[in-house]
Amino acid sequence: MSEQVINYLSENREQLLQKLYDFLSIPSVSTDSVHKEDIKQAAAFLEKYLNDIGFEHVQQQDTGGHPLVYAEYNQAGADAPTVLFYGHYDVQPVDPIDQWKSDPFTPEVRNGRLYARGSSDDKGQVFMHLAVFEAYMKTEGKLPLNVKVCIEGEEEIGSEHLYEMLHDKKEQFGADFAVISDSGMVAQNQPTILYGLKGFTGIEINVTGPDHDLHSGMYGGAVRNPAMALTHILASMKSEEEVITVEGFYDDVEPLSEHERELIAKVEGEDYRESTGALETVSEKGYTAKEHTMARPTFEINGIFGGYQGEGTKTIIPSQAGAKITCRLVPGQDPEHIQSLLEKHVHEVAPSGVTVDVKKEKLSAKAYKVDPDHPLIRKAAKSYTEAFGKETVYVRMGGSIPVVEWIESIYNIPIVLLGFGTPDDRLHSPNESFPLDSFDKGMETLARYWDEINKK
Amino acid sequence: MSEQVINYLSENREQLLQKLYDFLSIPSVSTDSVHKEDIKQAAAFLEKYLNDIGFEHVQQQDTGGHPLVYAEYNQAGADAPTVLFYGHYDVQPVDPIDQWKSDPFTPEVRNGRLYARGSSDDKGQVFMHLAVFEAYMKTEGKLPLNVKVCIEGEEEIGSEHLYEMLHDKKEQFGADFAVISDSGMVAQNQPTILYGLKGFTGIEINVTGPDHDLHSGMYGGAVRNPAMALTHILASMKSEEEVITVEGFYDDVEPLSEHERELIAKVEGEDYRESTGALETVSEKGYTAKEHTMARPTFEINGIFGGYQGEGTKTIIPSQAGAKITCRLVPGQDPEHIQSLLEKHVHEVAPSGVTVDVKKEKLSAKAYKVDPDHPLIRKAAKSYTEAFGKETVYVRMGGSIPVVEWIESIYNIPIVLLGFGTPDDRLHSPNESFPLDSFDKGMETLARYWDEINKK
Repeated sequence: MSEQVINYLSENREQLLQKLYDFLSIPSVSTDSVHKEDIKQAAAFLEKYLNDIGFEHVQQQDTGGHPLVYAEYNQAGADAPTVLFYGHYDVQPVDPIDQWKSDPFTPEVRNGRLYARGSSDDKGQVFMHLAVFEAYMKTEGKLPLNVKVCIEGEEEIGSEHLYEMLHDKKEQFGADFAVISDSGMVAQNQPTILYGLKGFTGIEINVTGPDHDLHSGMYGGAVRNPAMALTHILASMKSEEEVITVEGFYDDVEPLSEHERELIAKVEGEDYRESTGALETVSEKGYTAKEHTMARPTFEINGIFGGYQGEGTKTIIPSQAGAKITCRLVPGQDPEHIQSLLEKHVHEVAPSGVTVDVKKEKLSAKAYKVDPDHPLIRKAAKSYTEAFGKETVYVRMGGSIPVVEWIESIYNIPIVLLGFGTPDDRLHSPNESFPLDSFDKGMETLARYWDEINKK
Repeated sequence: MSEQVINYLSENREQLLQKLYDFLSIPSVSTDSVHKEDIKQAAAFLEKYLNDIGFEHVQQQDTGGHPLVYAEYNQAGADAPTVLFYGHYDVQPVDPIDQWKSDPFTPEVRNGRLYARGSSDDKGQVFMHLAVFEAYMKTEGKLPLNVKVCIEGEEEIGSEHLYEMLHDKKEQFGADFAVISDSGMVAQNQPTILYGLKGFTGIEINVTGPDHDLHSGMYGGAVRNPAMALTHILASMKSEEEVITVEGFYDDVEPLSEHERELIAKVEGEDYRESTGALETVSEKGYTAKEHTMARPTFEINGIFGGYQGEGTKTIIPSQAGAKITCRLVPGQDPEHIQSLLEKHVHEVAPSGVTVDVKKEKLSAKAYKVDPDHPLIRKAAKSYTEAFGKETVYVRMGGSIPVVEWIESIYNIPIVLLGFGTPDDRLHSPNESFPLDSFDKGMETLARYWDEINKK
């Protein structure tokens, strides 16, 4: 039974946290090639930990990009189910670095929160799973079910090689169901079952005018300014009512049912002004912010750039300007089709006198939904409620996890999303953190869940 | 007579060029504080050269910012006129540095052009004046007129302290007329009298949404994206017909007379596609590109920035986005009034949910026009024509030289703009250069001009 497992976790809390700090101290930023060696070090950390726990066939698999850490446990017997556990050990870049209150790779606890890049997304949550496996092995000498571990190093760069791996090694990665902890709860200590995720796609727009920066006095009035052309293009893609004005964008959107709008209304959502510092909540005309973030597609400029950005003034007409754009998609929308619609729109509205290049991001995923009444989901909700002592709520979220779509499309197995993050974790931002409270209760939830699964 | 002066310049060409290379090798970038020492070194170079030539009262005047190099020559006698020669020894930043074919501060001659930052704007042209003064002193033992030298180090940062200096030291800087060589000819070897300059003003817009970068999946649909808000603001300020759509912007514009449109049409303008590499020429609806660049106001985005600009994708809603904007103004327009109109417009169109801050650039100047039939202008045209062997044309240009407006407003004296740059000099851009041919003929023009002035 899981009580002694839970006791092990609390008795060994300090050593486990220390080990987690070591893991978080490795700057495994996957988007930037300067961190190649750090990525390898993070993979090596996991390889050693899995071996120490007692997993078999532990290996760093060559993906062609950053290595994927694989391991198996088959001692639960042929009758026991097999779970595919997925996570990622790579993290987002840390810039703007000057906004961090403590070094992103020197874990620090302040007010019950552990501050470090990756503390929530996803190294912290990956570590919780391994710690629970360790606790089972150290106390019961075995795991309650068979496990296949798949921890990649490319999630933050679109899991470039993962689909290929899952597809080509179907036999090796095959399981009865999958568990992923790379998401969050709607509020701290509010157990949350995530039964829907958004899809994802993106483009980068680059506008070129003159072949070099021009003196704005000598050439202002003679050529098109690519930065101004870019603003005309972008402003035409989303209205001030937050409605995406790209033709056909909403055509395949699965409408939001009244029943789901009620479900969403029931969720005690976060105070967006509180958590974001924005002046007010702004959402798509006709929908609440909760509805928009959970169940309506989005269009966001992630970055915009062009011309002089330094100190003082530089009186130029820039040669180039560009923008990075990503969209979150809902069930019904096809990422590639959306990319084509965006590309078509950009070229249609592009003014004369400039060259406009649209680069389609490889990064792409369909939206995902699972039946909230599936037994595996019910057991998860039960474990959550026991560990956190609070009723579990069911939500859809705006985040995208390409692997969820891929596992479903390749293996067609249920996927259980056991997220322990909170809205205040500041994922992808300066000062990312994770509540130590979620760390403790989350591990208890996992310990109870494996035990529940084991019950016939 | 100026023949021996001209001979001296050709006989000593190599030494003079070597001395110019030394001057251009000093990275006197005024916009960036890391170059503070280089600025001082450039000022010291001028101080020494002026002393060597035989000027009096040579001094680096403390402006509170970068030093102003001052010198006098009073030996031409009380009957001889006194000219105020103005120039600047500071240069623009060099970024994007990777687009330079040779180091910006290692002068290199390729195909008859001297490549270096400042070769044309304005160190090269300042040097030509000093070389001609040297030639007069070395050959005739004196200068044909009295001279006051004023070479500042802050032109590229808006001549921050110059107005104060000219205003407070009216006695010291006072002269009968002024000569400035900080402009260009409409085409290489086409002597050009510049009788009109545009005014100048600018603002910086900063839009703030959330108080930190947000995960676009978790918050997309809940808050206003400041980068998107910025594009809506900017797109509302200039139409695709290149008409500035800020209310009142054109109200005080002195209309372009038919006579001037004919003058402009006569000028054999450059091929803008050739010189800029732009796909096509684009100008204000109802005006040719030549008319727009010479005599109609402009609105240009010099830089735009916000969110993630690095390698790969970062799925955020940025906390901030901003843009640097400058306008070129024509006679009738008041810079401060235009700034207020821009600021008013920005706040009126700014969408909800973001904080919009408008910073008014100090950098500002009224437009300038001089009578093309003034005797000092006629003598300049004669000297040009003799040195270049070609008829001189009269033009207005889009560039702004605040000092021109200030000298006029403070001293109310004629200002002669003797520019020797060419449209291919790539001012403010990578690979700035200056034709050695203009160097030779330009110095001859100056030598002849001082001689002409001397003639009663």
